[in-house]
Amino acid sequence: MDETFITLEYREEKLFLIDQRVLPTTFTLFVCNTYKDVEFSIRDMVVRGAPAIGATAAYGVYMAAKEFAGEKDFETKFKQACAFLSLARPTAVNLKWAIDRMLGTYEKAKKLPIEQIIALLKTDADAIRSEDIATNKEIGRIGNTVVPANATILTHCNTGALATAGWGTALGVIKTAFYDDKNIFVYADETRPRFQGSRLTAWELMQAKIPSKLIPDSAAATLIRDGKIDLVVLGGDRVAANGDVANKLGTFALSVICKEYGIPFYSVVPVSTIDFSIASGADIPIEERSKEEVTHPGGVQVAPDGMDVYNPCFDVTPHQNITGIITERGIIRPPFRENIERLRNGESLL
Amino acid sequence: MDETFITLEYREEKLFLIDQRVLPTTFTLFVCNTYKDVEFSIRDMVVRGAPAIGATAAYGVYMAAKEFAGEKDFETKFKQACAFLSLARPTAVNLKWAIDRMLGTYEKAKKLPIEQIIALLKTDADAIRSEDIATNKEIGRIGNTVVPANATILTHCNTGALATAGWGTALGVIKTAFYDDKNIFVYADETRPRFQGSRLTAWELMQAKIPSKLIPDSAAATLIRDGKIDLVVLGGDRVAANGDVANKLGTFALSVICKEYGIPFYSVVPVSTIDFSIASGADIPIEERSKEEVTHPGGVQVAPDGMDVYNPCFDVTPHQNITGIITERGIIRPPFRENIERLRNGESLL
Repeated sequence: MDETFITLEYREEKLFLIDQRVLPTTFTLFVCNTYKDVEFSIRDMVVRGAPAIGATAAYGVYMAAKEFAGEKDFETKFKQACAFLSLARPTAVNLKWAIDRMLGTYEKAKKLPIEQIIALLKTDADAIRSEDIATNKEIGRIGNTVVPANATILTHCNTGALATAGWGTALGVIKTAFYDDKNIFVYADETRPRFQGSRLTAWELMQAKIPSKLIPDSAAATLIRDGKIDLVVLGGDRVAANGDVANKLGTFALSVICKEYGIPFYSVVPVSTIDFSIASGADIPIEERSKEEVTHPGGVQVAPDGMDVYNPCFDVTPHQNITGIITERGIIRPPFRENIERLRNGESLL
Repeated sequence: MDETFITLEYREEKLFLIDQRVLPTTFTLFVCNTYKDVEFSIRDMVVRGAPAIGATAAYGVYMAAKEFAGEKDFETKFKQACAFLSLARPTAVNLKWAIDRMLGTYEKAKKLPIEQIIALLKTDADAIRSEDIATNKEIGRIGNTVVPANATILTHCNTGALATAGWGTALGVIKTAFYDDKNIFVYADETRPRFQGSRLTAWELMQAKIPSKLIPDSAAATLIRDGKIDLVVLGGDRVAANGDVANKLGTFALSVICKEYGIPFYSVVPVSTIDFSIASGADIPIEERSKEEVTHPGGVQVAPDGMDVYNPCFDVTPHQNITGIITERGIIRPPFRENIERLRNGESLL
């Protein structure tokens, strides 16, 4: 994995996060001293990317337990803190998944002395983080099987080490193929409105020395049409039980173009991103973010005062437009509902 | 028309242009004293929009004639200046169209005394400007016939008064419908990388008090899919003889989404935008612009130093994706090649 930077790390009783709001011009760590700092770091996108949000929230749960230890109404306060953390962002399911897992650990341990409960929560948060890295390495290995020996790959948003506890999902597939000595070229969408492609993916691509170009989001369509792209790989923030994928705004449009021109289109996610309780993408809540992201890119005003804005953070891509969903337990291909049900039942798709 | 602002105006021996590089936060006029200033204003996008570029260049030709009047090798220098002006931007055909028209006026007048030549060139530049406004009003009248009484319209880039000598093409259609008391709502794409939607279209929409929202370019696709858009109207920088349209980057992707979901998709241009000499869109040169437009939006760095960029300014939409091309001589519908040939032969499509 990329040993050059660690997206999130708990040490000295604090959670250290790479502050992704100020990359690539500034590399600085954001320090969370309390679970409320953790909630802020997720809400304000100090940390983003569905798996990274999950691991960060897990430490938030642990930190909440530490903060309330010894208080009389510990359980009430602790669970309120978990609920507070789970509302930091609405769309990514990994946030809820990680908090639910930590709550499960708590429920099993709650009869134990508080010190032991806290120790078990720390162990589980560490496990969520290290399992995510291992998961991503396995996703990379599996995803690499669909990457040709010479491939120009288009990606959207950031799905690298920064979006996860390490290595990355879709960008992890790209890195795996590149380190497998495949001849890889990457086009990275800038990803308006928050420029995760420009700020984060371009930075990771340069760190890894992968040949690449940054493009405005709208430039992808003609590259796909003109046969310049061999496959598209990108992430997913929540996958419904029928294979519909909620992901960063712009994903859906790419899927339509790929379908029209017969280009393989893969979403790359850990199984924890699948929300088995949601029947289809129509039921996934889509976060709307502030108008300033559109009117003031980089803090500079480009739209007139008072102009109204519609700024959805995600869109839903129907499973009909998706070639496959690459996970650590195999590639989900059509029929999606049946194959996702197999995953739910503990089967492997490998 | 919008009497509140005049995109370009020749007076006091100077060409005054609204400086579109600094809107909407600053309203200031850029003054061209020489034809070289005119070339700069087109190249640096002080003025942009195919019809506005054409009218601006016409004044540039007139100013070149004035500058070289009385010089021994007048004709050589004058024609060199015209060639220089015609290279300011490669994609929009109106630039070449306007210069060719001015050169035709010169050829007919060249035996006359230089004062009369210059006077005739001034008359023709004024005519190009005023004809453009009249053309746009007629385009608006014709385009209004395809706008339902209640319509949510998506547009891309800026095609308003600022993109023309006045009133506008696609945005002129929207304004005509709005002033016709239709119940209009507009979604305006921000239009990366130069934010013409945010900076110019949003500004014009607010000036005209048309209900509207600004969106990231990628948000258009789900609005179209979800039935929130009744029709798309946008401009064109060069139309080939088969109806393929080169227009602002992002147009092609919108056309694919509209085709997939059966939403009417109109390009709106004056007939002068049709390049009868170009058989198809494949032969239209596509301007690439600087990487800084992508890496430094609004002057603020968002991508790492040294990141490579692909930044095409336009893309080509195949005529198969286009419902109709709205002109001042009627709406060109399939079969495009035959109907464009009729326009070339002087017929009307009304």
